Amino acid sequence: MASSVHHLLFIINLLIIPTTLLSQSIIQMPPRRHRITDDNLYCDSWRFSVETNDAGTWTSIPSRCVAFVQDYMTGDRYLSDSAAVANYSLSFARGFRSEEMVRTLGSSTSMRLCSPICPTIRRMDSGLNSYGHRSVTFDEASFDEWVDLAEAPALPASLKLYKELKHLGFKIFLLTGRSEHQRNATAKNLLYAGYNNWERLLLRGPSDQGTTATVYKSEKRSDLINEGYRIHGSSGDQWSDLLGFAVAQRSFKLPNPMYYIA
Amino acid sequence: MASSVHHLLFIINLLIIPTTLLSQSIIQMPPRRHRITDDNLYCDSWRFSVETNDAGTWTSIPSRCVAFVQDYMTGDRYLSDSAAVANYSLSFARGFRSEEMVRTLGSSTSMRLCSPICPTIRRMDSGLNSYGHRSVTFDEASFDEWVDLAEAPALPASLKLYKELKHLGFKIFLLTGRSEHQRNATAKNLLYAGYNNWERLLLRGPSDQGTTATVYKSEKRSDLINEGYRIHGSSGDQWSDLLGFAVAQRSFKLPNPMYYIA
Repeated sequence: MASSVHHLLFIINLLIIPTTLLSQSIIQMPPRRHRITDDNLYCDSWRFSVETNDAGTWTSIPSRCVAFVQDYMTGDRYLSDSAAVANYSLSFARGFRSEEMVRTLGSSTSMRLCSPICPTIRRMDSGLNSYGHRSVTFDEASFDEWVDLAEAPALPASLKLYKELKHLGFKIFLLTGRSEHQRNATAKNLLYAGYNNWERLLLRGPSDQGTTATVYKSEKRSDLINEGYRIHGSSGDQWSDLLGFAVAQRSFKLPNPMYYIA
Repeated sequence: MASSVHHLLFIINLLIIPTTLLSQSIIQMPPRRHRITDDNLYCDSWRFSVETNDAGTWTSIPSRCVAFVQDYMTGDRYLSDSAAVANYSLSFARGFRSEEMVRTLGSSTSMRLCSPICPTIRRMDSGLNSYGHRSVTFDEASFDEWVDLAEAPALPASLKLYKELKHLGFKIFLLTGRSEHQRNATAKNLLYAGYNNWERLLLRGPSDQGTTATVYKSEKRSDLINEGYRIHGSSGDQWSDLLGFAVAQRSFKLPNPMYYIA
C-alpha cells in the first residue's frame, strides 16, 4: 500500500571515484606543468562554470586546467567542498527530523538524498578542448577492470553523511548509472568502502539502456514516488543526478570538475 | 498576434551593484583581518555551496569569510567568473543564431537571457551567522539613496554580452525585482551604465508586491510566454532568477557571494 512507505528516506548516489581515478591513472593526466597565475584564474572560473552548470555539456578538461584539476582533486579543496555540501545536506535532514517531530501523527516522512556512485565516465579519449589540445584521456577497459576490482574508497564526507542519516532513521536508496550486470561488484565495493544496510541499490536495467542519465534517474525517482515515497532531498556530483522530473525538494550538488554526464 | 513576436529575444537581468556596493560602503564591511589559510579553504567551500545553491537560504556572509568575499569581489576573480559565464551565454546565443539560419523559414526565434539589476538586497542588519558573530550590515536608507543616484556602473561582462546580443539581433528584456516607482531611476542608471534599446524593462508592479523573487520572476516569464515569446536563455546572479516555472531552455548563474534573494 502506497501510504505504508512514508518512511524517512534518503537516496544516496555515492561518489567513490575521483581520487582513486587519479591515483590509479584510470584517467591519464599529462605531466604536471609549471602553473601560471593566469591559468589558475582561468581554471577557477572554468570550474565555477561547470559546477553551476553554466558550461552546459562539456567533454574534457581544458588542457591548461588539467594540473589545476589534479591539484583540486588531490588536495584539501575537494574534500573541503564535499564536506561543506554534506554538512548542508545533514542540516537539511536534521531540520526535517525536527519538523516531523512537531507535526507527527504517526506517519513518518519519506526522504531521498542522492549522492551517486558515479559509475560512468564520459569518453574523453577523442576529446579536444576549445584550444585544440588533447587534454585528458579515458581508458574504458581500465575503468571496467577498476569497477570489477571493487576497491574504490568512499568519499569521506559522503560516508559520514550516510552514517548520520542512518542514525537519524532515514531509509537510504542508492541510485547509480552503472548497469545491472555490475550489481555484485558495486554492492561489494559499497560494503568494502563502509556502506551497509541501504534500502535499495538501483542500477540501469535492460529497459534503461540508451537513455540519458537525467531521464534514467528521473524515471527511477518517479517510480519511487509512484510507490508512495516522497523525495525531499537529493544529492549527486552531476547535474543530471538532480535535474529532470520527479526532483527532490532540495538538491545538493557535490563537486566534480573531472567529467560531465548528460 | 502571438505568432508575430517570435523574434530573437534575450532578457537580461543586469547586475550592476556589487563592486559599487563595496566601494560606496552600502554594505558595511568590518576592517580587513589577517587571513588564515584555513579560512580561505572554509570560505571557498562556503562560496561553492552558495553558488551551487547547496546552502539554500542564507542571510549573511559568515564573519570569517567577509574579508574573503571582499577580496573576491574587488579582485580579479569576480570579473573572471562573470566573464566566463557571459562567454558561455554568448556561445549559446551564437549557436541558436546559426541553428536558426539552418532551419530558417521566415519566423525568427525568440530568446531570453536574463542577468538582473539585482535591486533588492536582503536585510542583513540583524544577521548573525552560524558562529554567532555579526558579519555584514545592510543600510536600507543608503541603498535607496544609491538607487536614486543612478550611477552604478555596469558589470563589464554583462554589458559586453548585452552589446553582442544586440549585434546578433536579439530582443533584450530586463527583469528586475525593483519596484515600479524606481523605473525612472533604473532606466536612467541603465543608460548611464551604457545599456540602451532594450525591448522592455520589467519591474514589480502593485500586484507583484509580497511575492518571492522566484514566483515574481516566474510569473513575468510566464506572461512573456503567453504573449508568444519562447524563452531560450536566462541568466542572473540569484537562483531565484533562474528557478521556478516558465524557466528558460538554458540558465546562466552569475557569481554573487554577497547576498541571497529567495
